[in-house]
Amino acid sequence: MAFTQSHFPYFCITTKILLMPFAKGKLIAIGGAEDKGTDLEKGEIHRNNLNFFELGILRRIVEEAGGPLSRIEVITTASMIPYEVGDNYLNAFGKIGCTNIGLMHIRNRADTAVTEYLDRIRACDAVMFSGGNQLRLSVTDGGTEFLNILKKRYQEEAGFVIAGTSAGAMAMSQTMIYEGNASRAHLKGELKMTSGLGFINSVIIDSHFEKRGRFSRLAQAVSTNPDCIGIGLGEDTGMLITEGNKMEAIGSGCVIILDGHEIGYSNIADIPDGNPYSIENLKVHFCEKGNGYLVSERKFLPEVSDGAVIKKQVNVE
Amino acid sequence: MAFTQSHFPYFCITTKILLMPFAKGKLIAIGGAEDKGTDLEKGEIHRNNLNFFELGILRRIVEEAGGPLSRIEVITTASMIPYEVGDNYLNAFGKIGCTNIGLMHIRNRADTAVTEYLDRIRACDAVMFSGGNQLRLSVTDGGTEFLNILKKRYQEEAGFVIAGTSAGAMAMSQTMIYEGNASRAHLKGELKMTSGLGFINSVIIDSHFEKRGRFSRLAQAVSTNPDCIGIGLGEDTGMLITEGNKMEAIGSGCVIILDGHEIGYSNIADIPDGNPYSIENLKVHFCEKGNGYLVSERKFLPEVSDGAVIKKQVNVE
Repeated sequence: MAFTQSHFPYFCITTKILLMPFAKGKLIAIGGAEDKGTDLEKGEIHRNNLNFFELGILRRIVEEAGGPLSRIEVITTASMIPYEVGDNYLNAFGKIGCTNIGLMHIRNRADTAVTEYLDRIRACDAVMFSGGNQLRLSVTDGGTEFLNILKKRYQEEAGFVIAGTSAGAMAMSQTMIYEGNASRAHLKGELKMTSGLGFINSVIIDSHFEKRGRFSRLAQAVSTNPDCIGIGLGEDTGMLITEGNKMEAIGSGCVIILDGHEIGYSNIADIPDGNPYSIENLKVHFCEKGNGYLVSERKFLPEVSDGAVIKKQVNVE
Repeated sequence: MAFTQSHFPYFCITTKILLMPFAKGKLIAIGGAEDKGTDLEKGEIHRNNLNFFELGILRRIVEEAGGPLSRIEVITTASMIPYEVGDNYLNAFGKIGCTNIGLMHIRNRADTAVTEYLDRIRACDAVMFSGGNQLRLSVTDGGTEFLNILKKRYQEEAGFVIAGTSAGAMAMSQTMIYEGNASRAHLKGELKMTSGLGFINSVIIDSHFEKRGRFSRLAQAVSTNPDCIGIGLGEDTGMLITEGNKMEAIGSGCVIILDGHEIGYSNIADIPDGNPYSIENLKVHFCEKGNGYLVSERKFLPEVSDGAVIKKQVNVE
């Protein structure tokens, strides 16, 4: 994706991503366990605080993709129960009036080359990567024509949406966490990372963030290269990312941002594996629905206002 | 503890604690599950990274209290299994050569008035509050002569040590967390707080910090009054606090400091309970053994050097 390509006329003005064009597409990274309307059926409405399924994350994906008639391809590669996961998404999208949903049960690298799949991802309005194991995504899709088509469409096409939940969100960045025991993540080396699908640079994404107590593990990831902003996604919570930079928190929970640019003292480069590390001065923001963040500018925004529809809503007791 | 008392000649020079004298005693707040040498017996040496029980937290308590002949009273009030907990501490301190350990199984407010107990806490070199339920400590000890003696000795006597683990650490501060589901702590109101034993102001202490994923709950506590520094204690990890201000991390894990003084935007005052909150710019430090922190100055110290013996040690692979 060289910056000399003539069809990328726009360049970021910040030094950090000087050589990268703005991506015209959108990413929607979700922390897992997004509301699929199943509690409503059981009569157990105990989702965090929004009592309207209609306000949920899946609806936002549909809106960003162009509405209920949009073609959305659900890619179940990360999951070990792809048929069950696929059916859940068919049902969930169906509840909000979407009948143009496709399932892609891509299990291995050979599947990524199937002509029908390549045609479908060239034609769809959005893709949705399911949860599961993010290493299955990088191992299966890395370096394939399938991934190249997605990257090219994301770079060039305004309105093209790549959504992903849990593993599907964590795999979006160039550097990806694939393992790390949360309760031992204050020890150097407990975190395992590799290359992700690479839709976005300069961020590292973690999921199920509060539920699984992953603060220390994302802090370790950020401390090993403070150029990357850590994005800790709570459950039923996500970040809508436009231009590869502007983020808007969506969903019912919280996104925690870790900014390591002002780290002072740190011993992590000098200690052996298995030892606890020190970090001085990690900056942290808590973003709820409607708050935003600019990655390059490292700026928290109380309210996102340009372009995105803002629905600030709190329950009244 | 009025500042006019003539036997408190020293006053802090910072504005924050202008009216409070320096405490001459020491606090040792431990995050729970401190090494008691029991893994050694089982042949399972998998404590975080220190392979020498002799370097552990209990030994540091003994050193600070004056050595193996010191009288240490273990107060089991917080626990619902006080006899078992008491015996564990007798065994653990015994392994490092301490035979002058007393147990105080204080179960209710009437017990705190027992003359023998009052005499013993007037005479001992250190007390150690066990883990359990911190509300049992504040409910049982709050406003008693028993607690007043401890506070007076802590204020006036150099070398007097108050140690506490888990609930015993969380109860040390003036404001104390007593409940809060970690996985829902990104929602306003999920955190329950009350007054603690009040040995130290301007901090809020949490325990089992990484193991139980408590970052958001301490962040909520700090965000509701950013004057308080959050101290998140990992397991087998603690903070030695001198002059009510100077902190030195001890033990095999990590202490996470949360400083809310530079919080910008926050919505927590304005949203109803049950909604996720926003915080802009919470400052976080990770302290491992030998790192320090000054509460009033809000300053991370890579190495603590004045007075305390520094044993910086890492394993060589």
